[in-house]
Amino acid sequence: MTDDLAERIAKGERRALARAVTLVESTRADHQAQAAVLLERLRGLNRQALRIGLSGTPGVGKSTFIEAFGMALVKAGLRVAVLAVDPSSARSGGSILGDKTRMDLLSREPGAFIRPSPSSAALGGVARRTREAIALCEAANFDVVLIETVGVGQSETMVAQMCDLFVLILAPAGGDELQGVKRGIMEMADLILINKADGDLKATATRTVADYAGALRLLRKRPQDPEGFPKALAVSAVEGTGLEQAWDEMQTLATWRRDTGHWDRTRAEQAAHWFEYEVREGLLARLREDEDVKSAMAEMAHAVAQGQATPTAAARTILERLA
Amino acid sequence: MTDDLAERIAKGERRALARAVTLVESTRADHQAQAAVLLERLRGLNRQALRIGLSGTPGVGKSTFIEAFGMALVKAGLRVAVLAVDPSSARSGGSILGDKTRMDLLSREPGAFIRPSPSSAALGGVARRTREAIALCEAANFDVVLIETVGVGQSETMVAQMCDLFVLILAPAGGDELQGVKRGIMEMADLILINKADGDLKATATRTVADYAGALRLLRKRPQDPEGFPKALAVSAVEGTGLEQAWDEMQTLATWRRDTGHWDRTRAEQAAHWFEYEVREGLLARLREDEDVKSAMAEMAHAVAQGQATPTAAARTILERLA
Repeated sequence: MTDDLAERIAKGERRALARAVTLVESTRADHQAQAAVLLERLRGLNRQALRIGLSGTPGVGKSTFIEAFGMALVKAGLRVAVLAVDPSSARSGGSILGDKTRMDLLSREPGAFIRPSPSSAALGGVARRTREAIALCEAANFDVVLIETVGVGQSETMVAQMCDLFVLILAPAGGDELQGVKRGIMEMADLILINKADGDLKATATRTVADYAGALRLLRKRPQDPEGFPKALAVSAVEGTGLEQAWDEMQTLATWRRDTGHWDRTRAEQAAHWFEYEVREGLLARLREDEDVKSAMAEMAHAVAQGQATPTAAARTILERLA
Repeated sequence: MTDDLAERIAKGERRALARAVTLVESTRADHQAQAAVLLERLRGLNRQALRIGLSGTPGVGKSTFIEAFGMALVKAGLRVAVLAVDPSSARSGGSILGDKTRMDLLSREPGAFIRPSPSSAALGGVARRTREAIALCEAANFDVVLIETVGVGQSETMVAQMCDLFVLILAPAGGDELQGVKRGIMEMADLILINKADGDLKATATRTVADYAGALRLLRKRPQDPEGFPKALAVSAVEGTGLEQAWDEMQTLATWRRDTGHWDRTRAEQAAHWFEYEVREGLLARLREDEDVKSAMAEMAHAVAQGQATPTAAARTILERLA
């Protein structure tokens, strides 16, 4: 089964890819075992796509941008995969990209693959699923993988940790609102795109670009940036303006990073990071999954709540059991 | 040794208390063992102080407030301990309350105990140290323990999780700046004090109180609050105004919570929370401390970085070793 699936993915078949992503998303142990075998097999292909993380709060026109940008790439002969990361969808019930029709044109292109965020997942599960879905898209010979994330919580940091480029999409805004973007997010951005640079907002967008360009210059220079990066640009997803320039800048940056070794170094660091993350998460999962440990924990928690032991002493008792 | 120390702490001797806090702060294994014995012995006294967490960004006059407020409590015949929590002091080198002279009057009072933040500690260590220092102050018969935290990062959440009351101190500000307080911090506050309600800022302070009172009304009602809480008040640490009213409100709230069972329930929940936290931290510490695990981790991290294994597969190898 996995052999056949691996072969079809390697040929770039989208239905096989979709099925493999479903395996990766499944919480069933047999599915996860199959997914592991599949990923190990496909690893040997050693294919790399350009992984681009895209972040922005709702209302900045992120989906419209991805649709227009994805279409431009497809028309240039590239194969484009779009993955969505939304750890909040489990709670809110709503999922970004949940409605594929939001990317009506792109979803009909044979050179495109669009995958919404699964409807239930914790952040930990989201990290593994997204990483493995990216690996599957690369094995399926996609040239560009766009990873869309909502601009809230820790999902940006997570996505930035699995991408080659991280793009922040913002709406035109007055100078005061610049404060709204968290410094930590700014520092992760390789490119800031001010969307909706059209109609009445065009002038505001130009000013916003200047504001962010100024703010970016104040940040400490990072080794992985050539002269002039990170950069702020105005785009209009609706009118299609600025998309080509945005793609040029992304390619310039990607090429520079490839040539200088930063690309490989970053990928190696990211892989090591995720390895350590999985070890930590796996270790903590035991506390939730082992029935004996769970009941010992419940018992000690009760004693602590009753004031019969200090938290530190009670924790020591459990840790001794786990040794 | 510990017997003698326990007895002297139980009598309320400040020097014995200071020495015990030093034991609690030490990273030496023998000191930690002594601290554990000491804490277990003192637990039997079953003494409770009113634990008040105080948070506010630099510049709001937090130290001045604590000095004036602490002096008012001491004059009312209460014994007051002040602890500082500053996880950033390890990095910045500066420690809040580092200079005791900042609380010149209070530090000279026999009924007061002031303890600065230790100069080096990770957040995890800070949590345990602060919790245990609070327990020591309670055993030493202090009536009120004020826990000061800088208004950054996760330290507020941590402090709120070990206090009976959480007080947010703010400076007078225009309506726009209200946005600066994170919603999560607002939701933890039992009392918001607008300090510097004196001189030129008095009118602004009154408006700020009204702004926050309005914002607090918009938050969902919490079961642990009687009618009218959380509340916003104007105070002036410099002129000493509003301090008595602030203390009255704190007592009203504390009494209500005691009478309705929320006090005990919250303390029990907090203890259970810290127990689980210590188990998690202790488990993760093994990855850093066990030499065999450390070298296996380094080896696998290298393989992952080289692309010879996926992060998930490599993590599984380590987790099997740890089973």
